[in-house]
Amino acid sequence: MTDSTLLVFGSDPAPRLDRLSGRARVVFADEDSLPGLLPSADALLVWDFTSDAVRDAWPGGGPRPRWVHTASAGVDRLLSPELTSSDVVLTNARGVFEQPIAEYTAGLVLAMAKDFHGTWELQRRKRWRHRETMRLADSRAVVVGSGPIGRAVGRTLAALGVSVELVGRTERENDSEFGRVHGNAALEDLLPSADWVISAAPLTESTHGMFDARLFGLMRPTARFLNVGRGPLVVERDLAAALRKGALAGAALDVFEHEPLAGDSELWDLPGLLVSPHMSGDTVGWRDALADQFMDNFDRWAAGKPLLNVVDKRLGYVPVP
Amino acid sequence: MTDSTLLVFGSDPAPRLDRLSGRARVVFADEDSLPGLLPSADALLVWDFTSDAVRDAWPGGGPRPRWVHTASAGVDRLLSPELTSSDVVLTNARGVFEQPIAEYTAGLVLAMAKDFHGTWELQRRKRWRHRETMRLADSRAVVVGSGPIGRAVGRTLAALGVSVELVGRTERENDSEFGRVHGNAALEDLLPSADWVISAAPLTESTHGMFDARLFGLMRPTARFLNVGRGPLVVERDLAAALRKGALAGAALDVFEHEPLAGDSELWDLPGLLVSPHMSGDTVGWRDALADQFMDNFDRWAAGKPLLNVVDKRLGYVPVP
Repeated sequence: MTDSTLLVFGSDPAPRLDRLSGRARVVFADEDSLPGLLPSADALLVWDFTSDAVRDAWPGGGPRPRWVHTASAGVDRLLSPELTSSDVVLTNARGVFEQPIAEYTAGLVLAMAKDFHGTWELQRRKRWRHRETMRLADSRAVVVGSGPIGRAVGRTLAALGVSVELVGRTERENDSEFGRVHGNAALEDLLPSADWVISAAPLTESTHGMFDARLFGLMRPTARFLNVGRGPLVVERDLAAALRKGALAGAALDVFEHEPLAGDSELWDLPGLLVSPHMSGDTVGWRDALADQFMDNFDRWAAGKPLLNVVDKRLGYVPVP
Repeated sequence: MTDSTLLVFGSDPAPRLDRLSGRARVVFADEDSLPGLLPSADALLVWDFTSDAVRDAWPGGGPRPRWVHTASAGVDRLLSPELTSSDVVLTNARGVFEQPIAEYTAGLVLAMAKDFHGTWELQRRKRWRHRETMRLADSRAVVVGSGPIGRAVGRTLAALGVSVELVGRTERENDSEFGRVHGNAALEDLLPSADWVISAAPLTESTHGMFDARLFGLMRPTARFLNVGRGPLVVERDLAAALRKGALAGAALDVFEHEPLAGDSELWDLPGLLVSPHMSGDTVGWRDALADQFMDNFDRWAAGKPLLNVVDKRLGYVPVP
């Protein structure tokens, strides 16, 4: 295996790669060099997962990496038709982001329930103004996304006493944790009584733009919407319109159609909208955790063992058993 | 019992009192009329619990109410030496505030772990700046106060994966929920490794001013301190000094030595300090819940049954069995 070549995409060097010394030739690529280097690589580590460069550079045919690992949960930016239809194995960072994203989401939900934002605005103005806030226990959340992230979000909210309904691609009964996982068709029934609607789905052809004027129209004026999945799950102009006309009480977006969010975007100061810069899963030590996870898979690859976190490229995520 | 007189202190009328029609004479008192009305009252409902008027007006001897109910968890503002040493029964609002305060505290903890305040400052300036935040799971909290509020706070943080140590007046092993409840003396050992130090104790002679320079000096520079108990548990100038010199990473106060906090207080814009106006327990419907709770106790009182939530006036709270 010393002869194998690992191509690492990303200018910001991944930690831990020194552990590969003597075991693989490690070559670093940036956007410019990537197309020329891909054909000679045996494996590709997508360390910078915030660009479309890999999808754009992926070879239509001929030599190419047999294994691609991305240091992200979502694989939407990688999947070209050529990659999807090939026998290249794609693995992802399932396991690293779930709990941090669940904590972040629970924090946003509590912050909105307790109106921390309003309190801190009043603090800036040195104003003491007592208000009544919302009790979280017994409120109702609909979590869209029944993969590991959606499940962790649902579990954490349930631990806070929230009544949680999980919605996924495939309806099923007898889920060991949530009892029933609803299909998307159930949203029509679930959204009108939800206090919290949380988008934590992978971005696929069937989820692209799913949160649009129709779904926002089903929510009640006291409901809040959160997106911690992928930006393009949401039609931003429809969300902005819903917030402006008071069809929703508030929203929080950690992900956006275009990132970073442009300085002149209307979303920065839309009433009731909390903006954060795609950081919900990124807790101190996350880069080490991502590198360790890749190293574990590299050891398996080098030993010819089955890899962990193999993505079903047609579904666009690692199927939950 | 129709002949009995219920005195209600508070200009803001309590809901539900119409249910007493024909069962008791209901008389309302403000600060001025309170001293004159107390001697002829059989029972006193302290609906406005934010003033010292009842303590100041409490008769030293002679006729006085035989039962005092306060619509608050803390009884510190009521307890005069005369009331404490008398056989007057004092009951409180135990049961109404625990879960809301626990949610509020968990929200503050998450908001600090995830630096929501920093994110919202950046949003105001329309700046996209990704940061790594703190993972809450496996962090360590010390909750001071082993009554119902401290326990609810501890339970909620534990549900979020936090390792919780509870500190109370009386050390004990084999607590059904927390295993061990530490005595105050253990703070010296516990504080140096705590990420979160949460004050949720009743205000008594032994807790007054307990969070002072000495205790802040035991905390680590990355720790955060929260007070959701009573303002005078904390020596505010010592906390301010600790924050200024970076001996603590941050703090959140919902209660203060003097409330409302004066407009010119240094606490409004102390670096790293979050100020909220004594509202952690006050969720929508709390006033109805307080009134219902009083009515239940009134029914017991009228029927000559034992009252619920009887305060041990020497301890200053309802003892947990």
